[in-house]
Amino acid sequence: MALISIIEDFHPLNNARLLDRAAELVQPLHHHVKEPVGGFKLKERYSPEKEEVVLHKVPHLAMGKGENLCLDFGTHLVGYLTLDLSYTGSHPDAPAFLKLKFAEQISELSENTEDYDGWVSRSWMQEEYIHVDVLPAQLKLPRRYAFRYLKITMMDTSPKYKLVVKHAECLTETSADVGKIKPWTFDGSGSALSADEADRFGRIDEVALRTLANCMQDVFEDGPKRDRRLWMGDLRLQALTNYVSFRNMDLVRRCLYLFGGSRFPDGRVSACVFTEPTVQADDTYLFDYSLFYTVALEEYLSETDDEETLNELYDVAMQQIEMSLRKCERTPEGLVITEDAAKDAFIDWTEGLNKRAAAQAVLIFALRYGRRLARRKNDWSQANYLMEQLELLKKGALAMFWDAERELFVSDGQVSPASQIWMVLADILKPEEANRLMKKVRDALGGQEQSIDASGCPMLTPYMHHYYVAAMLRSGLKDEAREHILAYWGSMVDYGADTFFEAWDPAHPEASPYGGAAINSYCHAWSCTPAYFIRKGLI
Amino acid sequence: MALISIIEDFHPLNNARLLDRAAELVQPLHHHVKEPVGGFKLKERYSPEKEEVVLHKVPHLAMGKGENLCLDFGTHLVGYLTLDLSYTGSHPDAPAFLKLKFAEQISELSENTEDYDGWVSRSWMQEEYIHVDVLPAQLKLPRRYAFRYLKITMMDTSPKYKLVVKHAECLTETSADVGKIKPWTFDGSGSALSADEADRFGRIDEVALRTLANCMQDVFEDGPKRDRRLWMGDLRLQALTNYVSFRNMDLVRRCLYLFGGSRFPDGRVSACVFTEPTVQADDTYLFDYSLFYTVALEEYLSETDDEETLNELYDVAMQQIEMSLRKCERTPEGLVITEDAAKDAFIDWTEGLNKRAAAQAVLIFALRYGRRLARRKNDWSQANYLMEQLELLKKGALAMFWDAERELFVSDGQVSPASQIWMVLADILKPEEANRLMKKVRDALGGQEQSIDASGCPMLTPYMHHYYVAAMLRSGLKDEAREHILAYWGSMVDYGADTFFEAWDPAHPEASPYGGAAINSYCHAWSCTPAYFIRKGLI
Repeated sequence: MALISIIEDFHPLNNARLLDRAAELVQPLHHHVKEPVGGFKLKERYSPEKEEVVLHKVPHLAMGKGENLCLDFGTHLVGYLTLDLSYTGSHPDAPAFLKLKFAEQISELSENTEDYDGWVSRSWMQEEYIHVDVLPAQLKLPRRYAFRYLKITMMDTSPKYKLVVKHAECLTETSADVGKIKPWTFDGSGSALSADEADRFGRIDEVALRTLANCMQDVFEDGPKRDRRLWMGDLRLQALTNYVSFRNMDLVRRCLYLFGGSRFPDGRVSACVFTEPTVQADDTYLFDYSLFYTVALEEYLSETDDEETLNELYDVAMQQIEMSLRKCERTPEGLVITEDAAKDAFIDWTEGLNKRAAAQAVLIFALRYGRRLARRKNDWSQANYLMEQLELLKKGALAMFWDAERELFVSDGQVSPASQIWMVLADILKPEEANRLMKKVRDALGGQEQSIDASGCPMLTPYMHHYYVAAMLRSGLKDEAREHILAYWGSMVDYGADTFFEAWDPAHPEASPYGGAAINSYCHAWSCTPAYFIRKGLI
Repeated sequence: MALISIIEDFHPLNNARLLDRAAELVQPLHHHVKEPVGGFKLKERYSPEKEEVVLHKVPHLAMGKGENLCLDFGTHLVGYLTLDLSYTGSHPDAPAFLKLKFAEQISELSENTEDYDGWVSRSWMQEEYIHVDVLPAQLKLPRRYAFRYLKITMMDTSPKYKLVVKHAECLTETSADVGKIKPWTFDGSGSALSADEADRFGRIDEVALRTLANCMQDVFEDGPKRDRRLWMGDLRLQALTNYVSFRNMDLVRRCLYLFGGSRFPDGRVSACVFTEPTVQADDTYLFDYSLFYTVALEEYLSETDDEETLNELYDVAMQQIEMSLRKCERTPEGLVITEDAAKDAFIDWTEGLNKRAAAQAVLIFALRYGRRLARRKNDWSQANYLMEQLELLKKGALAMFWDAERELFVSDGQVSPASQIWMVLADILKPEEANRLMKKVRDALGGQEQSIDASGCPMLTPYMHHYYVAAMLRSGLKDEAREHILAYWGSMVDYGADTFFEAWDPAHPEASPYGGAAINSYCHAWSCTPAYFIRKGLI
């Protein structure tokens, strides 16, 4: 996630009690030392001459001016780098000037940073220029990096010596206890899975859980390369997958307190919360993200029965629904979100996507969770109130967006997959209607169905694909959901993903919603949900 | 100084007793806090739009992507930078990616590092690329810089915020006690100095002493930007100036022990000694530099009468002369340095300079100092031996290099200013001959005399110009020596020097012996000797 909204003189509403609670819930971090499994010199773009190098041979790779050494740490890591540097030749008579480039994907190694001209800050590129004044030296980098590959380039040295990398290691960091996890294996019973499919699901599950673990830090980060922070929409999907894997319940709880503890001045939950140097809500508001707060709290409750947290955060959750309902207008048939309010929804990165139907659907979806919270709290008047609003929203939605003749949801003239998917998740159709609609969506994505504009309004992110799978499961298309996971996330594994990407279109592997693949995050938690579907037994 | 010689498997001869003594003599460093006196934004090459900025206004200079702020610290400093950084706009949602460029001369600010293609490592360029992950932040840079100007460029940020530099300071560092020094004032008696000249000498003296102080660190460094270490030829001139100013005798002593403590395996003093990570002689040998060890020890003794140091380092000093004498061959008339040995002399950066006559002269010069050391040590047999060698060398020199008809020294066919100057310093002519010869050199430098090839073998460094002034003083040309200091060092002051440069040709201010002015050192101690001439009362 990376959004630009600037509110002059933004002063978030902070709740010291909730923030104190969040501070008490800081989780211990687990560390492991990882060393490179190989090395090579990169000569050409995208075609590294792979000389697998045993590390005790590294001294032979003494680097003169302009030379490089690429280290492969074997898989995606998040942590801190230490290099032991020495030299051959005369005593160094000038500093060693190094460039370090950290890459999640091998293709990043040959990207030229200067070529990037996207709208997301190039300051996210994991590159450092470092002068080493005295050799031998142990270089401990203070910043955390997300990477599998490290390219060390000797920018300049004197002709009198060459640099030698004697040892390299990464101290990894995560709040996930990865030792807890057993590989997922298919027990063979009650499923249509073939042995090949089961094996493929096993690999998808492994990559998904590595993705989640590497994003589990002081908070659930969206991506450890970029933006390295807590976004509400991402949190909901991370929490779901965490419940079936690492089960770090207090990390979810901490994040819920953080969102509750610093909000917009009018009480809305921000799309994102900063934790450094102090906790502060971002001045970015997303209609759907604020509603996922209510959803995520309910899901946390049903996993933990943690009544104390319910008591402390219930009002915040209800406030999100109330603020969103205020953005609806009464029609003869019911309640409909205004055009303006719908523009504040995220839904997906798709350009030109009309978000009104999907935003209305997210509100209906969230009300369902809100009502459960109210019942759990024995707040019957609120539960009844939400029930009434739910009915009005459903009726409004059907009247405004449902084209009964074409059996499609139309959002201000546009028929996107996103609108169909979210309306199915909002549960306002009869089961057989939802089933027929999702088949149409699937056919449209496959190019065999033209009534839904899948090419004009493509799904761009694994985040949206999660809701597509969820909608298929909700409408009885279990086989199709399974196939989609194998095809979509499976194609990332085939591409060589150690972790799942922020954005992925199998037909265009290097596409980026940010104006350049070099800025893409190749470990992004909103893409970790196959492990949720798999381990929850939903497929 | 910056030389390339590589000896495979160089193992210096270390003397633990001498190195322990050097370690005991580490000098305390003095620190002062300096803040910028102004700031401006740099738009065009060499023509900064100087908007003098009072520092409390700096917050108005919030920097977006691509913008810069240049700070002027008022004069040349050596030390450590601290920046207090903050922001305007939204909470920073991406790291701040900064480039810091430190410049001794304002012209360096607009140099493009990538354009530099000289033979000295670009790793000496004082530039850093830094990511600041959390704002506000106090950025304390761990490396030491030599600079007056600092250009801070915001390489990238997100559109949501701009960077603000709230405060900047430099903690300066020197082993010179600058508080000891009173400005030099002309007492008006017994000199031909006009009031204007006296004023100009005062300014030259101030710049010279700043040059020396900024090079006085853990050792006498050649230049605090580059190479930041101890060279023997430079040390001799620094020590001379130190004796008439800061009088940090133990720093000279420490340096003499360092050179004595780590030498070539055969006992020769190296041209340069490294002190980090441990003391180690460089594998660079210069014929003249090793002889300056003997000279510098004698000068230290005559300032201090420190017999203990004499006892400990006498053998090292005599060994330098002995090793050099072995590089001479017997001619019918006397002793002459071999062609090969002469090539190992530095003398000056002048390309194509034939160094044989000058090297012979340096050896004669050094023997004079060696003989004084022997006499001081009551080592009469050595004193007599050196006297004999001195006579043989003088006779050999006159026979080999002196053209009695033309009254010029000719070195293998070449008539350079350097050969004349060094032979005058070697003191082998009659006074009136030396006087006539130095007048010819002066006229040749002024373009009025063709018998000496001043344009083909130019003097390139203030180091060589020091010996030119010394030779004029030795041959009775006091007025001419004074005029030359005013003209040569004075032109650097006119050019805006806060400290004196490593290389200087008034006709070509941006010339560099290193292939690019960006790598030049603009504070270089071998150019500090005007203060010696002035304060010693020699002019």
